[in-house]
Amino acid sequence: MIIKEIGGEFGLIRRIAELLPADRAEVVKGIGDDAAVLRIAPEPSPYLLVTTDLLVENRHFRRTWSTPEQIGMKAAECNMSDIAAMGGSPQWMFVSIVLPADTEVEWVESLYRGMGRSCQQHGVVLLGGDTTQGDVITINITLLGSVDPDHLCLRRHGRPGDLLMVTGTLGASAAAYALLSNGYRPSKYLLHKHLTPASRLDVSSRIAPFANAMIDISDGLAAEVRHICAQSAAGARINSQNIPIHDDVKAAGRTLGIDPVTWALSGGEDFELLFSVSPERLAQLKAQGCVLHEVGRITDAEDGILLMTSSGEAIPLPGGFDHFE
Amino acid sequence: MIIKEIGGEFGLIRRIAELLPADRAEVVKGIGDDAAVLRIAPEPSPYLLVTTDLLVENRHFRRTWSTPEQIGMKAAECNMSDIAAMGGSPQWMFVSIVLPADTEVEWVESLYRGMGRSCQQHGVVLLGGDTTQGDVITINITLLGSVDPDHLCLRRHGRPGDLLMVTGTLGASAAAYALLSNGYRPSKYLLHKHLTPASRLDVSSRIAPFANAMIDISDGLAAEVRHICAQSAAGARINSQNIPIHDDVKAAGRTLGIDPVTWALSGGEDFELLFSVSPERLAQLKAQGCVLHEVGRITDAEDGILLMTSSGEAIPLPGGFDHFE
Repeated sequence: MIIKEIGGEFGLIRRIAELLPADRAEVVKGIGDDAAVLRIAPEPSPYLLVTTDLLVENRHFRRTWSTPEQIGMKAAECNMSDIAAMGGSPQWMFVSIVLPADTEVEWVESLYRGMGRSCQQHGVVLLGGDTTQGDVITINITLLGSVDPDHLCLRRHGRPGDLLMVTGTLGASAAAYALLSNGYRPSKYLLHKHLTPASRLDVSSRIAPFANAMIDISDGLAAEVRHICAQSAAGARINSQNIPIHDDVKAAGRTLGIDPVTWALSGGEDFELLFSVSPERLAQLKAQGCVLHEVGRITDAEDGILLMTSSGEAIPLPGGFDHFE
Repeated sequence: MIIKEIGGEFGLIRRIAELLPADRAEVVKGIGDDAAVLRIAPEPSPYLLVTTDLLVENRHFRRTWSTPEQIGMKAAECNMSDIAAMGGSPQWMFVSIVLPADTEVEWVESLYRGMGRSCQQHGVVLLGGDTTQGDVITINITLLGSVDPDHLCLRRHGRPGDLLMVTGTLGASAAAYALLSNGYRPSKYLLHKHLTPASRLDVSSRIAPFANAMIDISDGLAAEVRHICAQSAAGARINSQNIPIHDDVKAAGRTLGIDPVTWALSGGEDFELLFSVSPERLAQLKAQGCVLHEVGRITDAEDGILLMTSSGEAIPLPGGFDHFE
């Protein structure tokens, strides 16, 4: 049996989690969220957050499309995004890297300079890692952070009646990728969103005290909505017309004959945040001046996970990216 | 300029460390030891340890030589070994993995079962990671642990006059690899040492309260002695005749016409511990019944790093493994 046949990446993760139970007192959350959460000192001491992300050449980045500095920044930011999604602050980074023997030292240094730029921006220090030789450049970053126990946003914290909010427009990275793959030149905005996406640590700490569930959008909106619903034992209703999409993404859709909503639902690496919040708490959050987009709401589990199309029809929510499908 | 030209893996690490300074109050030790050390709560609370190790198929393991369970155990144990070398206890594991699309689910589950066996033995829980698709199986483990500040053994803690001790015989893994590569069948002992090496967590916590510097032997004795000397600003004198070598390693040397001391000095993955200890403290430690081998002593930096050969000659210490040389 191959991985695709057991439900791809997420099926595999479920199996591994069942194989290796982690029921220990200090484990607030193990496998299955954006980061693991550990109670390492008595509350109200912050919890420790740990996340790890793997990037493989020609799958997550291409040396012909990106400068090493851009690759380094993106690798760092996708980990920063996981810490943002928990409501936490990133602190300490560890980088493991596979490099071909003929890699130029200057290329490697620029890669680390890119990571360093992201680290500096968020007050993170790089403290170690591992380097080894191999044929395919592979970068694994482990990022540790901390979170105030009262501000921790787990995927399972969603409640029926919560509004589902996103922090920015979606689909730009996927649109840029589609254009590049088809030989078109993306706009400056799209290229920026694809090559140097930024985590939303700039707003996550303001959102966290008000949000219930939170997750970062790295595999498309549909996959993330499903994660929140599965862990919160809830349903959801997403309004297609309310999904915020940038004009350049719409233009790319016209160029390629693709509905741009597809990119928002299934295209990865937006690194915006999706969170659920009660209507009352949302009013308080908005009073702080956060720019937010309401894309739907959490419903009861028996209502299922639905997309309201532009013609007013309710269909099962389509899409979501899986690394093994 | 390629990596080999700047001194291989260790030259590269030095450059990265210079590029990204990590001078923050909570950082007890960043890049350059077996694990990073963080003061996350006021002393006497334990320090947090973080280590990470990367294994690439056909470089660190072969699917034709090892069962997936053996590969999983070895991947876990080489991280356990880094925590042992700091004098600490392992706690929480995170596994990132690159898998080809056609990988059998059963193979992956056996791999994790192997990691799980090592984890269970040492009281470690697996709390997350990342999975992605790629052509070459690549496993990155990040292991967190804790250490009593009084028992922390850094590479820089070596002092002239300290005796240099190892916890077991050396060179078996390299001897098995050499036999296999040349079409010979290694003895059961050698095969075991190569395919399922074990960390020395069984003795490290007894050694740590007495030792000064400590390091695990993953790149051969010579490389590890040099690391301690470099960070302790010291020299060393190793007695070739005192390096403990198993009879099966000696037999392998005769088969292949190789001096088995070469394997002890340059062959990797023994996962025994090398530590430095004052003669007085060693007596106290030995009273506890630890089986230890004295291989040399730490000297002043100006005396250099020397090997006393079996003919009584003092030569610069040869050997040590580098992933880019």
